[in-house]
Amino acid sequence: MALYVYKFGGTSVGTVERIKAVAEKVKKSHDAGDQIVVVVSAMSGETNRLVALAKEMQVQPTDRELDVLLSTGEQVTIALLSMALHNVGVDARSYTGAQVKILTDSAHTKARIREIDEANMRADLDAGRVVVVAGFQGVDEQGNITTLGRGGSDTTGVALAAALKADECHIYTDVDGVYTTDPRVVPKARRLEQITFEEMLEMASLGSKVLQIRSVEFAGKYNVKLRVLSSFMEGNGTLITYEESEMERALISGIAFNRDEAKLTLTGVPDLPGVASKILGPVAAENIEVDMIVQNISAHGTTDFTFTVNRNDFARAKSVLEGLRNELGGNTQIIGDNSIVKVSIVGVGMRSHAGIASTMFKTLADEGINIQMISTSEIKISVVVDEKYLELAVRALHKAFDLDQETA
Amino acid sequence: MALYVYKFGGTSVGTVERIKAVAEKVKKSHDAGDQIVVVVSAMSGETNRLVALAKEMQVQPTDRELDVLLSTGEQVTIALLSMALHNVGVDARSYTGAQVKILTDSAHTKARIREIDEANMRADLDAGRVVVVAGFQGVDEQGNITTLGRGGSDTTGVALAAALKADECHIYTDVDGVYTTDPRVVPKARRLEQITFEEMLEMASLGSKVLQIRSVEFAGKYNVKLRVLSSFMEGNGTLITYEESEMERALISGIAFNRDEAKLTLTGVPDLPGVASKILGPVAAENIEVDMIVQNISAHGTTDFTFTVNRNDFARAKSVLEGLRNELGGNTQIIGDNSIVKVSIVGVGMRSHAGIASTMFKTLADEGINIQMISTSEIKISVVVDEKYLELAVRALHKAFDLDQETA
Repeated sequence: MALYVYKFGGTSVGTVERIKAVAEKVKKSHDAGDQIVVVVSAMSGETNRLVALAKEMQVQPTDRELDVLLSTGEQVTIALLSMALHNVGVDARSYTGAQVKILTDSAHTKARIREIDEANMRADLDAGRVVVVAGFQGVDEQGNITTLGRGGSDTTGVALAAALKADECHIYTDVDGVYTTDPRVVPKARRLEQITFEEMLEMASLGSKVLQIRSVEFAGKYNVKLRVLSSFMEGNGTLITYEESEMERALISGIAFNRDEAKLTLTGVPDLPGVASKILGPVAAENIEVDMIVQNISAHGTTDFTFTVNRNDFARAKSVLEGLRNELGGNTQIIGDNSIVKVSIVGVGMRSHAGIASTMFKTLADEGINIQMISTSEIKISVVVDEKYLELAVRALHKAFDLDQETA
Repeated sequence: MALYVYKFGGTSVGTVERIKAVAEKVKKSHDAGDQIVVVVSAMSGETNRLVALAKEMQVQPTDRELDVLLSTGEQVTIALLSMALHNVGVDARSYTGAQVKILTDSAHTKARIREIDEANMRADLDAGRVVVVAGFQGVDEQGNITTLGRGGSDTTGVALAAALKADECHIYTDVDGVYTTDPRVVPKARRLEQITFEEMLEMASLGSKVLQIRSVEFAGKYNVKLRVLSSFMEGNGTLITYEESEMERALISGIAFNRDEAKLTLTGVPDLPGVASKILGPVAAENIEVDMIVQNISAHGTTDFTFTVNRNDFARAKSVLEGLRNELGGNTQIIGDNSIVKVSIVGVGMRSHAGIASTMFKTLADEGINIQMISTSEIKISVVVDEKYLELAVRALHKAFDLDQETA
């Protein structure tokens, strides 16, 4: 007998029929003797409907009341799913976040979980019941309803799995797992059986949006085995686990990429202490997030300073830099380019294997792709290239690192 | 400074615009220095939508989960109204039934209120806030969400007014008060400034469905002054209060009537002890509610036994009696009539004034209306007449007891 937490997102519970399908899936596991806690989101479309109502009431709806409003979305789903379970003969009981109780801080619309009381859930599980919990929501010390912000239902699932010491936390989505890269770019992309938390974090932050980063961090921190599966297909999905797995692992797990990048270079910057913060301070003050930062070796007392931002922030960032030119003095020039992309190889294997970077660079060179910037972390190497090379670069790297699906 | 509980039903909060209108109304009182607790129902249509969803999940939805589901309706309204209040500069805070907390028993879908914790509401009121409470719902000792059943929001309003010792509880509806009779039948019907709880109970049970009977009983029991007003018009409505009022009162407060009656007579019934229960026992066993019961004086050892039921139950009740004929023996005949109506005069004045009944009977006789049955209680006299006389009877009585609106 295993204990699983299943999390179903808004699309998976978006209609009466889909909720019934979830009930059937849960019944199967329950009948097999497993203990199941189901975490559900609001039916797809419901949150948007409620937000629209709120905005008709108040241009900037009060956070506390927005949480009271939005939390009804999941509350509807838990009741309906419990009924659907009863209808197929499975005893079940629903819980709102407050009923569990999932204690959070008081940061309305983006609360953090502090503590989970598992006593009631445990009693229900031991009595043979399926426990159905509203995702995305909690309650603060004063009894106010809170919500966890974006992707909050994933976080609820992981947090419950941690509190209950569940064997696995299954995140049901509309994809059947994590792929070596986007199958729309590389048709030979493979579903990964396993991926480490760290790799998943790098993949997710690079745009492979299968899971919310926060829930992955949470799972890693609390030692929860996460599995990403499809709500609509059968299959084992992808297990997100620890590096310590003994399985034979590829050097590189996947190729991630990001099309939303733009690059800004300041040339002829005086190479003095504090110059980086002089440049990036005002950028940060404008709430512009900086991704990669590269500073070239100084020559003749000046340096070139390059960084990337989201393409939407390109114009704003550029005008911040224009305002800095006088202050920086000298012959500082600003060069901008918003037709670049970032391509990254991700894998814990690179920790213990030399030569991965050079394989990457050689692969790109062989295809005639010029590398504009390079940035590395412990388990990731990212390069910036002209956007016209994106597909070519990803496919070449996918092949070079033996990620292509074997043909049967 | 007075403390008021305002209750707005589903129609009064049925659209974004109406919720905003409620906010304006509350703002007015709040700005005038009054402390206001607002109780709201689900937006009209919402409860039906949720019930329909539930029935798609389960033919007979589980009561506990139905309460979880339905309680979201009022939760949406409290959040939206609080936002609308914030939007017009009024500080407000919403409360679900559980948050108040409104402690009930565990009878899901028809729970009874046990206790109300007024501490949080009181603190908000003292801080100058408007308190917005979800009607119709509560929480049991175990933390399960409960609902109060039909008209539950009225009950919540009255219960909060009792707990907070409010000066008045205002029930906003789509009528502007309680009338001497239905204005559609008697155009000269007058709005009553006041009516006693007992009279209101008699009027309500006779079909003047302005308020749920349960909330009126509750108000009487806990000494809460109820006022019925229109959500959409200005005006003082009707105050429902105690008999002890010193104001000059009319003998009769109103004329009620009920078109949904049908009459069944058993003639030639042996006049023996236990015969009434022998007749009505099987009727009650069929879940048929009996309204008036009249047994005539016995002659020659037999009696005539007549009672009325709802017209929808007429056929079923008649077939129950057919089944009893052999058992009752003798020459028992069954006479049915489903084209009758009940007309009643209601007023606490009849306690201390003789001659009211005879005025009633003479008025009807003068119009040539034959009285088929008579039944009296302490503050009510009801007669059954042929349905064709309904309007004539009501208008004649309305005039005879000086209830007609004075022409300006």
